Amino acid sequence: MDTALIVGYLASLCSVCSFLPQVRKVIRTGDTEAISTKMYCLTVTGFILWTAFGLMRSEWPIIVTNAACFVLSALILVKKLRS
Amino acid sequence: MDTALIVGYLASLCSVCSFLPQVRKVIRTGDTEAISTKMYCLTVTGFILWTAFGLMRSEWPIIVTNAACFVLSALILVKKLRS
Repeated sequence: MDTALIVGYLASLCSVCSFLPQVRKVIRTGDTEAISTKMYCLTVTGFILWTAFGLMRSEWPIIVTNAACFVLSALILVKKLRS
Repeated sequence: MDTALIVGYLASLCSVCSFLPQVRKVIRTGDTEAISTKMYCLTVTGFILWTAFGLMRSEWPIIVTNAACFVLSALILVKKLRS
C-alpha cells in the first residue's frame, strides 16, 4: 500500500471521528448555543454532495467516509434545531 | 464538464463555506462553550492529512479545498483554546 493511500485512510478516519466528541458533548450537555446552524446546514449539504460524487465515481472510500460524516453531522444539526 | 465534477465542485464549496458562519459567530460572540475541542483537534489534523494526500497525488482541488478548510477550522480551534 503506497504512503499516499495510508495518509488518505488516516485523513478519512480523522474526518469521521472528529464528529464523535461533538455529538457526545451535545447529547451530554444539551448546549448547542455556540454552534452555528448555518455551518451545519452547509456541512450536511456538503456531505450529501460528496456521497453523491463518490457514488457517481464508484469510489467506496469517498462514499463510506462522507455517508458516515453525513449521519453524524445531521445528528448535531437536528439537536441544534430542536434546542 | 461531467455531472460528477460539478457535484464535486459544489461539495467542495459547501465544505469550505461551511466554516465561515462558525468563524463569524465565534468572533462575534466569543462563545465557544458548546464547541468540542477534541472535535476541532481531529478536524484540523484531518485537513492537514487531506492536504498532504492531495499534494502526494498532485490533486489541486483536494489541496485547495482542504488547505482552506484547515485555515478556517484552525481559527476556530485557536479561539476555543484561548477562551
